[in-house]
Amino acid sequence: MKTARVAYDGAIHVAHPTDTDALRLGDGRLVAEQAVTFLPPVVPGTIFALGLNYADHAKELAFKAPEEPLVFLKGPNALIGHRARTVRPDNVDYMHYECELAVVIGRKARNVKAENAYDYVRGYTIANDYAIRDYLENYYRPNLRVKNRDGCTPLGPWLVDREDIADPMNLALRTHVNGRLTQEGSTRDMIFSVPWLIEYLSSFMTLAPGDLILTGTPEGLADTRPGDEIVTEIEGLGRLVNTIAAQSEYYGSRHSAA
Amino acid sequence: MKTARVAYDGAIHVAHPTDTDALRLGDGRLVAEQAVTFLPPVVPGTIFALGLNYADHAKELAFKAPEEPLVFLKGPNALIGHRARTVRPDNVDYMHYECELAVVIGRKARNVKAENAYDYVRGYTIANDYAIRDYLENYYRPNLRVKNRDGCTPLGPWLVDREDIADPMNLALRTHVNGRLTQEGSTRDMIFSVPWLIEYLSSFMTLAPGDLILTGTPEGLADTRPGDEIVTEIEGLGRLVNTIAAQSEYYGSRHSAA
Repeated sequence: MKTARVAYDGAIHVAHPTDTDALRLGDGRLVAEQAVTFLPPVVPGTIFALGLNYADHAKELAFKAPEEPLVFLKGPNALIGHRARTVRPDNVDYMHYECELAVVIGRKARNVKAENAYDYVRGYTIANDYAIRDYLENYYRPNLRVKNRDGCTPLGPWLVDREDIADPMNLALRTHVNGRLTQEGSTRDMIFSVPWLIEYLSSFMTLAPGDLILTGTPEGLADTRPGDEIVTEIEGLGRLVNTIAAQSEYYGSRHSAA
Repeated sequence: MKTARVAYDGAIHVAHPTDTDALRLGDGRLVAEQAVTFLPPVVPGTIFALGLNYADHAKELAFKAPEEPLVFLKGPNALIGHRARTVRPDNVDYMHYECELAVVIGRKARNVKAENAYDYVRGYTIANDYAIRDYLENYYRPNLRVKNRDGCTPLGPWLVDREDIADPMNLALRTHVNGRLTQEGSTRDMIFSVPWLIEYLSSFMTLAPGDLILTGTPEGLADTRPGDEIVTEIEGLGRLVNTIAAQSEYYGSRHSAA
């Protein structure tokens, strides 16, 4: 089943797709998809994100592929829903998208072995984990200004149940910028697989329901500019649409630059 | 006012110190301090932590003092309360304590200027942000195995209201290991002050009530071993007590090493 969280008519609802353009809300009502505001499909616990988890992408950035997963945390302020806008700061040279399979944890997990890891997964969604590459160089990587800005990580549209995805390690990923295909890969090219990551993380900490693991992006990055429509797409999970906004336009001119 | 969160008699309560060894619960009851389980005094939102924010400590670790704050995030799994135990992994060479002033945000903060920053602070508490230095070397720093293990960050005992601390930038910090003074410093030696950090962080993201900023530790680190009692103390905030447990003893032998 595919489940979204949407705001409609003064309240937050779960919503499911139908055969038409309408969504079916949890209370049974049918509403036009354009009439709702999509929220991130999960109220997140801890948000883990992977750097350089595809060999081709590591090579693209001129990095050696890591021997241990490069995992960092993100705050809930970073998440926004499908069809929202993400701000490009006014004074940067390079902001790129990153189409990523996001794994949603469903049960407390501690010392889980890879062969049982999918038992702890509730489902999957799509993340677009934008990065402001200008700010990357800092002793602690990645700098929060690269990866933790308000609204810098669209998530959704759907939480897709684990049972509906036969093999999460063999899904096509694609990004289109203004309709042009710019990124194409497959989750089978991850360096550290979803089950391996769950074993690794749960070996020294407890994963909790609602925790998210953003599993990294394949090669094919490009700069994005205000007005661009970015569509990140994963086989079986749908299409996540996001638009880039200029900082001055989004916040108004009273907003300070940072 | 000083406020703890404690578990007692089947429920979670707020609790305040009295002139005796007893605590006063929110419902008025007096209970012996030893009869309660202290929890972290704040249900945390995003947890920010600073690396190398005291010049003497950066020098001690043979690092150049940073020009931009080194900020990383921690998950809620890392926090435990006053008088709890923290696990030392069985196969590491060096686990050190870090006595840190923890700032608790009280209001949504975005684009706040340093001169107004204290208006957004709810209060202060003590964090002991243990680090497993063995795992530090990784391309993304700090590795989650260094700083995000279950229970690796005691917090408390009290949330002390902002109004009760005349100058948070002039507080003595001290750590005692088994009664011996091993670390001594002052918050006035921070490289990036509390108001500066609130301006910096809120310049590119929104801080929310319950967010925590762990502001770094001065020099004086030492290895800790199972059985050690570590007391981290900050002027006006109290004394946070923690004991180091061996991994095998804490989890039992069925627990895998990591």
